[in-house]
Amino acid sequence: MASWLDISPSSHFSLANIPFGVISTAADATDRPAIAIGDYALDLRAFAQGGGFSADPSIEKHAAVFSSRTLNDLAALGRPFHRTLRQYLQSVFAADTPHAALLKDNASLRSTALLPLKDVTNHLPLAIGDYTDFYAGKHHAFNVGCLFRGPDNALQPNYTHLPVAYHGRASSVVVSGTPIRRPWGQILADPKAEPKIPTFTPCRRFDIELELGMFVCGGNDLGSPIPVAKADDHIFGYVLLNDWSARDIQAWEYVPLGPFTSKNVGTSISPWVVLADAMEAFKTQGIPNDSDICSYLKEPTKESLLDIHLEIDLITGDGNRTTISKTNSKNLLWSWPQMMAHHTITGCNLRTGDLLGSGTISGPEPGTEGSMLEQTQGGKVIIKLSNGEERKFLQDGDTVVIRGRAGREGALVGFGEVSGTILAPLDLSQ
Amino acid sequence: MASWLDISPSSHFSLANIPFGVISTAADATDRPAIAIGDYALDLRAFAQGGGFSADPSIEKHAAVFSSRTLNDLAALGRPFHRTLRQYLQSVFAADTPHAALLKDNASLRSTALLPLKDVTNHLPLAIGDYTDFYAGKHHAFNVGCLFRGPDNALQPNYTHLPVAYHGRASSVVVSGTPIRRPWGQILADPKAEPKIPTFTPCRRFDIELELGMFVCGGNDLGSPIPVAKADDHIFGYVLLNDWSARDIQAWEYVPLGPFTSKNVGTSISPWVVLADAMEAFKTQGIPNDSDICSYLKEPTKESLLDIHLEIDLITGDGNRTTISKTNSKNLLWSWPQMMAHHTITGCNLRTGDLLGSGTISGPEPGTEGSMLEQTQGGKVIIKLSNGEERKFLQDGDTVVIRGRAGREGALVGFGEVSGTILAPLDLSQ
Repeated sequence: MASWLDISPSSHFSLANIPFGVISTAADATDRPAIAIGDYALDLRAFAQGGGFSADPSIEKHAAVFSSRTLNDLAALGRPFHRTLRQYLQSVFAADTPHAALLKDNASLRSTALLPLKDVTNHLPLAIGDYTDFYAGKHHAFNVGCLFRGPDNALQPNYTHLPVAYHGRASSVVVSGTPIRRPWGQILADPKAEPKIPTFTPCRRFDIELELGMFVCGGNDLGSPIPVAKADDHIFGYVLLNDWSARDIQAWEYVPLGPFTSKNVGTSISPWVVLADAMEAFKTQGIPNDSDICSYLKEPTKESLLDIHLEIDLITGDGNRTTISKTNSKNLLWSWPQMMAHHTITGCNLRTGDLLGSGTISGPEPGTEGSMLEQTQGGKVIIKLSNGEERKFLQDGDTVVIRGRAGREGALVGFGEVSGTILAPLDLSQ
Repeated sequence: MASWLDISPSSHFSLANIPFGVISTAADATDRPAIAIGDYALDLRAFAQGGGFSADPSIEKHAAVFSSRTLNDLAALGRPFHRTLRQYLQSVFAADTPHAALLKDNASLRSTALLPLKDVTNHLPLAIGDYTDFYAGKHHAFNVGCLFRGPDNALQPNYTHLPVAYHGRASSVVVSGTPIRRPWGQILADPKAEPKIPTFTPCRRFDIELELGMFVCGGNDLGSPIPVAKADDHIFGYVLLNDWSARDIQAWEYVPLGPFTSKNVGTSISPWVVLADAMEAFKTQGIPNDSDICSYLKEPTKESLLDIHLEIDLITGDGNRTTISKTNSKNLLWSWPQMMAHHTITGCNLRTGDLLGSGTISGPEPGTEGSMLEQTQGGKVIIKLSNGEERKFLQDGDTVVIRGRAGREGALVGFGEVSGTILAPLDLSQ
């Protein structure tokens, strides 16, 4: 697909993508929906007000959603609408556009609606009702299990029977670029000492978790599970997600009810939501599951994972950049439809805007780990950066950038990036 | 305090209380704020529109919050405003009211604003951003620990050092009276059999958890913990809470990340929020903590728990009612300020409308347990109902009613009740 707009072949935001986000600008601080296309954002509020959707009444009649401050209203319209909208916007930007008068040949609307990406500020794309974090990365679960219990008991008996998850914290989900302050908390300075007396200290093992996030569209009523075969209809789209984790705090607090303050420090997501339809071409098989899983988790197809290339860069305070991990989102044991079917099996209601995390995505080989905990084998192995510096966990001033993309040059369906810089801790010592 | 309104001495909603909720009526389906007083609800939207707040400009200027569909806007105005508002409404209903013309002698406004409680429908009082469930009931934690690990290791080493909690599910919090459908899920029919293969079945051990809930007012920025000494300013008020629990599903799923689908079946709360100020007179000491706790959890006072008498009734499908437990909310190891200080210590942001649960409240003696799991010692001891029926866990058609009250007859500060009826499960067998 060629565009009349000059789009670099390496752009994540090709005509094959059309991801949705929420922007503001220096000239207008009101949050509003947009798409990313090449090096530009198309301000959908300005585009709609300028008659941009006049060629399709089925979109035009819902134009109010483009003046909303989040994508929730747009998401709630459902996947058939998202499909129509994405195809329409592709046609607007196509080289052989049938709608040249709407934007290509409309210099006035181009000047108000087509904004350089570098001039827009991104915001959280949706208001998040609830955030749930899964643990579907089997290699990650195995790696972490090995550290705590050894390879023979690395995976718990339930792991291959149900998508393990925990309810996360919605309030602390932030958009890419938001700085993250190193937290204070309780840790066991010497985990083997008895009696176990915690130390109150800034976190010493602050870590990343490379995940994919999924936004829900449409919901289900409390008490009415979503069947696995219908779960696809409830996927609005995907983002990159970094679930910042305080490993030493987590180790002390998590028994018996799971992670709490070690995880609500912050969770960063990329700003542009790649629609479910944009990812249809990149469905593939995940990690095989030999267990005889329950009927409600059995899918009509095995091609339900996503083939997305993922990378983690660590940038030191003085600007040195090292790619510390490369992996792929097909390294999951459970698909999004399976996660949703399980999430709702006891009757839990999902709502438009809910965010689900995949769990940390790691491959089976060294250099494909989605966390520093795994890559350093619990702090025992050093990560060498390209400037000679060493890391076991994150240092103050470090910036972590996660990138993700599917497809080939010229038609990339990319996520851009999710980044965050670690700030020095407050002084809570007295 | 005497009122010109006829209030029964046994009413939970005495002049000493003034709890806030959200109502609608057959004549007007729009949700709006109200207070409960005796056998009446005062419709605050109607009262405000009828000039009810004209005697205090500091309230009148915020009258827009009384036309909101939730109490969030009211809660966000902060505790000094809530105090002024409660005292003003007490003066409106006082026998020697200085504001007789506003309501007592205003038959027209009385007829539109003072509605029989039996004629109003209650709704969730606040839009809940996040719901967190603590585990602060030490006797509960001990009782459950004994069932799983024996009395010598009943409490985990972290238990007396930090308020253990997990992030819950906000979407499935429902108001009292909402029926709860028995969930399906994965259980181990024989937990000791190897290999561990789950059965997909309706829950066989469906249970209650008697808790207190607390609504947050005002928030904190991400990265800025709330000091324990200032946490009281962030308490809007309290409700009764029943955290329905699928024990057999929980036992299989909860390792290693905590409860998930066993808890998001539903969480019921009482509809009237008892303001923090109304509970000031009932502060008392909780369970002593001999551990040397971290500085951020040390409170300026030991009188930070609440003296609330609590009861659980079980009503069978044919209407037989048995009180199966009596306990008190002072049976907690941690106070609300301590829970908030811990919740935010790593930087988590609380927001107006967030709901915190205390964890199950049990006393040390038989008959004071806050769950059937404890009272039946994991299903081994039978609960006898007053009609001769027996229970180990809940049956379809059972209704659970939790009641709570502080103070003495004639000046009760009561919560009313939170109730829910168990519906038969769906047929998900194929």
